[in-house]
Amino acid sequence: MLVQKYKDMLSGKSVIRELSEFATARGQEIGYENVFDYSLGNPSVPVPQEFTDEMIHMLKEKGTGELHGYSPSLGITSVREAVAASLERRFGLPYRKEHIFMASGAAGALAHAFRLVTQPGDEILTFAPYFPEYGPYVNLTGAVLKVVPPDTERFQIRFDLLEEMLTKKVKAVLVNTPNNPSGMVYSGETLHRLSDLLSQKSAEYGHEIYLISDEPYREIVFQGVEAPCVSAFYDNTIMCYSFSKSLSIPGERIGYVAVNPRCGDAGTMVNMCGQISRGIGHNCPPSIIQLAVAKVLDRTADLSVYETNMEILYKELVELGFTCVKPGGTFYIFPKALEEDAKAFCRKALAYDLVLVPGDTFGAPGYIRMAYCIDTEKVERSLAAFRRFVEETYR
Amino acid sequence: MLVQKYKDMLSGKSVIRELSEFATARGQEIGYENVFDYSLGNPSVPVPQEFTDEMIHMLKEKGTGELHGYSPSLGITSVREAVAASLERRFGLPYRKEHIFMASGAAGALAHAFRLVTQPGDEILTFAPYFPEYGPYVNLTGAVLKVVPPDTERFQIRFDLLEEMLTKKVKAVLVNTPNNPSGMVYSGETLHRLSDLLSQKSAEYGHEIYLISDEPYREIVFQGVEAPCVSAFYDNTIMCYSFSKSLSIPGERIGYVAVNPRCGDAGTMVNMCGQISRGIGHNCPPSIIQLAVAKVLDRTADLSVYETNMEILYKELVELGFTCVKPGGTFYIFPKALEEDAKAFCRKALAYDLVLVPGDTFGAPGYIRMAYCIDTEKVERSLAAFRRFVEETYR
Repeated sequence: MLVQKYKDMLSGKSVIRELSEFATARGQEIGYENVFDYSLGNPSVPVPQEFTDEMIHMLKEKGTGELHGYSPSLGITSVREAVAASLERRFGLPYRKEHIFMASGAAGALAHAFRLVTQPGDEILTFAPYFPEYGPYVNLTGAVLKVVPPDTERFQIRFDLLEEMLTKKVKAVLVNTPNNPSGMVYSGETLHRLSDLLSQKSAEYGHEIYLISDEPYREIVFQGVEAPCVSAFYDNTIMCYSFSKSLSIPGERIGYVAVNPRCGDAGTMVNMCGQISRGIGHNCPPSIIQLAVAKVLDRTADLSVYETNMEILYKELVELGFTCVKPGGTFYIFPKALEEDAKAFCRKALAYDLVLVPGDTFGAPGYIRMAYCIDTEKVERSLAAFRRFVEETYR
Repeated sequence: MLVQKYKDMLSGKSVIRELSEFATARGQEIGYENVFDYSLGNPSVPVPQEFTDEMIHMLKEKGTGELHGYSPSLGITSVREAVAASLERRFGLPYRKEHIFMASGAAGALAHAFRLVTQPGDEILTFAPYFPEYGPYVNLTGAVLKVVPPDTERFQIRFDLLEEMLTKKVKAVLVNTPNNPSGMVYSGETLHRLSDLLSQKSAEYGHEIYLISDEPYREIVFQGVEAPCVSAFYDNTIMCYSFSKSLSIPGERIGYVAVNPRCGDAGTMVNMCGQISRGIGHNCPPSIIQLAVAKVLDRTADLSVYETNMEILYKELVELGFTCVKPGGTFYIFPKALEEDAKAFCRKALAYDLVLVPGDTFGAPGYIRMAYCIDTEKVERSLAAFRRFVEETYR
């Protein structure tokens, strides 16, 4: 008697995975360099040399227990202190180690955040377009993810719709800025309004509504764009961070939960994360990786290629007549397809070896996501294919 | 509104942790070398040099994507293949990569195993004495852990009691051999009888009863002791393995689930693990650590010190008049205390700077656990303190 809900999930095919498999198979036919694979959000730039050097240094110099021993359940103390100090320096909030819980990437951080503040049946709201894994992440806890339809003008927040959906059952609101898939950054104005509404509704309902802020793209913000710190706007914010994109180490599973120091229960919540871990078999991120990221907290990989790629693509898309909001960060762009059915659009694009993902997956039908974490040279080569596709299909 | 069940857990103090904190505090007074700290099961021998060399080699030679990129959700394919090949070589069962799911240590492996085969309300049986973390590990899934009282003669299985408790609600039986805390290894006879009973009851109830085998101590087996492979006895066995003890890398969080190839649903179950991961924020163990362990699968740290320590302690305990079953493996020994109240016994031992853990925590009141993963020299020095303690307190 295997558990049916997991068994049932096996038949649900991931659109992104299918497209990526197509890209791999096609690559074997014509050479992967000739497949313009915009399907996967996998960092393409090298890890900072300092990270590698630090790993090698520790492997050579540190003893087994010190380097590979059990981490305390909330994370290695010196690492939590370093993370807190870095956040305080950067965002001006009084973070201390008591506010930090080391987690296995953003997925691990979110798994703890959801369990901190929701019981089965409670609702979590998020905003389309959104990272589709939020569905299973939330729903498998027993809570229910509800999606506020998109503001397709600017990919900020449709406050009229949010207010309607923000019922008493909602215990948390989940935001992701800079956003996968739209590339948009929430403005200070958006965050102010959101904070005001959550405060008002918390008071009205007599329970806190927490703001869970998923921030793996925080370090990828483009020139001239202001990316305000979500936690600065709302005391009951649970920040979920991952080093996957900033350091190009998504496989090493490292991030953290940082509860806003101004949240009255911050210390308790971090301790609770240690208890939640026991139930989900989580324990801690790898000790050696904790120690290594603590040494490079204020560094990132050279992320400039993402902005270069974005500018090239944005210019081309606009010239080709696409409706497209210019991304403020991330390595995604989210134009409107040239026909209503984005799935059909993406299917037709495959004939030109352009692998795009329909927005349906992200709660925004009619749009397409392009992940431009690929070499600039390839982005440039893809333009001709893009032009041919559009001219031969939509002119 | 924080979730009460996790908040409540904060007030429950871990006996082992309290004792270990005592040891640390006392160490600051009199020097840690003078505290005979038998409280913590933390490996004390160095990681194999081959592991370290392999890590450094990969950090120097491999590109970012290849080394630090996302692992497929079931684990890196080449790593799963290597694990399967090693298991097949060793245990003669036809393991293939389809039977292997890479997990973050034994805790991660167990978190998946429990969710594969139990729904909230279902029961999992285990046998005292048992690792106390099994309580929260199981109960926080919504399933219920029930503990079969100990066979204090030989720390095998009380089949009369097991049969009584093996009702229709039981969906899995959890074994841990070599055992924490008793150090005992289940004999072939025990495993045969267990397998027969589970087969019989599965047929009677019309549903599979799975055997979940937690095997972090598999490589620490003493001379002359036979440690049969649990999976060889029962088709519906889910093996949960960790490299923490064999390679002395508990902080790196690496292990696997290996579903018995003879289990009809093995492939489906491994795929289901990938779905379970999405709900518990697990993803995969760190890529670099997966790649490194795959290179040293058939190696271990030099584990011989544990046997040396066991022999010294066992001889002394017997001489001092303790009732004690001689361990067949692990780095634990589990003698009967010299008074009925093991907690009182352990409290009195602290006056001699002997840090022992009462068996109550492990479901066997009246016994004490000693974790002898410490330097042999310290074990030897502790004997005088042990003798003084016993003579001054119990003669």
